[in-house]
Amino acid sequence: MQITRDLLRVFWDGQIVDRAELGRQTGVARSTVSSIVGGLLTAGLIEEVGTGESTGGRPPQLLRLNSRRGVVLGADLGATHGRLLVADLAGVSLAEGEWPLDMADGPHRVVAWMIDRFEDLLKETGYSEADVYGVALGVPGPVEFSEGWAVAPPIMPGWDKVPLRPLIQEHVDAPVVVDNDVNVMAYGEYWTQWRHRAENLLFVKVGTGIGSGIIASGRVYRGSQGAAGDIGHVALTDHLHVICPCGNRGCLEAVAGGKALTERLVPGRTVRDLVEMAQKGEADVIPALREAGRTIGQVVAGAVNLFNPSVLAIGGGLGVVGDHVITGIKEVVFQRSTVLATRDLRLVPSRLGNRAGVVGAATLAIARAFDSPRVWAQLELG
Amino acid sequence: MQITRDLLRVFWDGQIVDRAELGRQTGVARSTVSSIVGGLLTAGLIEEVGTGESTGGRPPQLLRLNSRRGVVLGADLGATHGRLLVADLAGVSLAEGEWPLDMADGPHRVVAWMIDRFEDLLKETGYSEADVYGVALGVPGPVEFSEGWAVAPPIMPGWDKVPLRPLIQEHVDAPVVVDNDVNVMAYGEYWTQWRHRAENLLFVKVGTGIGSGIIASGRVYRGSQGAAGDIGHVALTDHLHVICPCGNRGCLEAVAGGKALTERLVPGRTVRDLVEMAQKGEADVIPALREAGRTIGQVVAGAVNLFNPSVLAIGGGLGVVGDHVITGIKEVVFQRSTVLATRDLRLVPSRLGNRAGVVGAATLAIARAFDSPRVWAQLELG
Repeated sequence: MQITRDLLRVFWDGQIVDRAELGRQTGVARSTVSSIVGGLLTAGLIEEVGTGESTGGRPPQLLRLNSRRGVVLGADLGATHGRLLVADLAGVSLAEGEWPLDMADGPHRVVAWMIDRFEDLLKETGYSEADVYGVALGVPGPVEFSEGWAVAPPIMPGWDKVPLRPLIQEHVDAPVVVDNDVNVMAYGEYWTQWRHRAENLLFVKVGTGIGSGIIASGRVYRGSQGAAGDIGHVALTDHLHVICPCGNRGCLEAVAGGKALTERLVPGRTVRDLVEMAQKGEADVIPALREAGRTIGQVVAGAVNLFNPSVLAIGGGLGVVGDHVITGIKEVVFQRSTVLATRDLRLVPSRLGNRAGVVGAATLAIARAFDSPRVWAQLELG
Repeated sequence: MQITRDLLRVFWDGQIVDRAELGRQTGVARSTVSSIVGGLLTAGLIEEVGTGESTGGRPPQLLRLNSRRGVVLGADLGATHGRLLVADLAGVSLAEGEWPLDMADGPHRVVAWMIDRFEDLLKETGYSEADVYGVALGVPGPVEFSEGWAVAPPIMPGWDKVPLRPLIQEHVDAPVVVDNDVNVMAYGEYWTQWRHRAENLLFVKVGTGIGSGIIASGRVYRGSQGAAGDIGHVALTDHLHVICPCGNRGCLEAVAGGKALTERLVPGRTVRDLVEMAQKGEADVIPALREAGRTIGQVVAGAVNLFNPSVLAIGGGLGVVGDHVITGIKEVVFQRSTVLATRDLRLVPSRLGNRAGVVGAATLAIARAFDSPRVWAQLELG
């Protein structure tokens, strides 16, 4: 099974290879490669795309992932909106949409709603439920990854330790991954944009709240309680007069998060309104976003020293509107982090922008599907 | 080679096992296990320790690491003192000492000095140079791990990018590991004290300076430039009037590090003097250490949120004298870090204390030796 997984990873990586190259990259014997490749071809998971150069004998067949063999479902569930997509096995979006959503409706209603949306999206693509290889969702709170449930999530009342996998698998017979939304974004950004050039990436989400996701040595680092990356409740010692709903004082999120900024700048309106005002370049809002970026930079500078990533990607609704927040973050990080930690640091806006969450979910779903005994059973290899 | 490594790891873990159990733990076929075990027995790297219970046939031979087969050399080189040891292959110290040291003498003189000390210590143990399986050293500055050199280390003038491995291998024909001192301490603490109970550990060293070492999923996490764990230069925004030698303001180390405390409390004296005063319980010093602990706690609380370790170990010369510093750190971390990140957190003094560095160095040297082609060549296994 490990060998099948290793070979599948080469294809999932997007490579076009012949059998000899597959053997070289994985260290697997030629005869074993041939037998597994035969199974993958029969199952339709890979396909031939012509022949390579002959090195004397018959020219070698070139192989690649057959990304149209099936689909995955990805969901980015936010506090107020959910974005869902159906993607092919290369992670390319085939159908996608965004809808208002109230996580406070609880897991049963939200999952039922999500399944309905997925069914509509699937219809658009022409694929059926039997073609679904995996499902992944990001949720706005701490997640115990091994259990697939949220743990004491402040903005998700009613979700605490509710097992989500069985709820979803009532409707879809495929492996289900549940993770914290920022972890999902970090993984999507890493896998689609950076996997060949960087091993360590920190993704900072600046939206209603503030959080971060950590990719360490190419893998999501979740920490001992799945709580890693929580920069939103780091204290700003010069803001201890600000009280945070978490019960503490001076938390970054309570000073520079979207909810806090909205209450301060445009009381009675929503974070979405604030984002729209920023998009229009309204003069009241821009300096406040730049200053929020500087404040966030104080905490992020410490995270850069501690974690020493090679990529620091800034995302989230407020993080990707114009350059305001990121410019503030840059000012402080390049002043405050150590010379060594910033020497080769790429501090960049998320290239996936508002889609980081759904793209990340699709990516996680595919990664899990290719690691799944179910796929191997289908291949009759396992 | 991978298989030999997997089997060796079971012995290095300290287990006493029969061949069947070795196969179970590693997933290696019985015949392959027997052949490799034969090689390890011939090489004297493992030994028989009696027989287990028969399950019908001949009672199985029990095997364990022959820790007296050879030795490793470990060095913890500090700014002003060096501690060196010779340990057996289980990491047990056979000869050990501490001496004053000036890293500013440069790598050639310090390495020559270190080799002399190692030769003296080796003589005490009765082992010879031919018995040395590996050498590891921790140095007080950032290290590019793959190259085995220090990078722009502030308190090690003359060491910048000087390749240390060849310097040492002129004298000792064994694999050499060079790492940052706090990484080495973190690994020693993790491996000897926690490896069966924790995966993620943060080791905070409070000495002349302040730094941390990160064990993530059981491995040293070094970051992209080998700079990970540098909490000493995180800014305290309420101390921006304090200028740090690094060129920035309000750095944790410039406010709460041993050098800063000494200059403030007992100007003209040394950090060692301060440690001695604390050991004697002098009333001028205790409240300042407690307060320094609180200040360190502000930064460490953020690191706990970001990294979510299950063990936070406090070490370093000032960190392990009495409970003063750790009590201050505890106060703030349990108040300031999130509920989820502290729910199961063990915030404890380093159990290895002042020996964390040398013990960690010995541990790293053994881990590398058992991963080394040289050992396998000796085993004629390939």
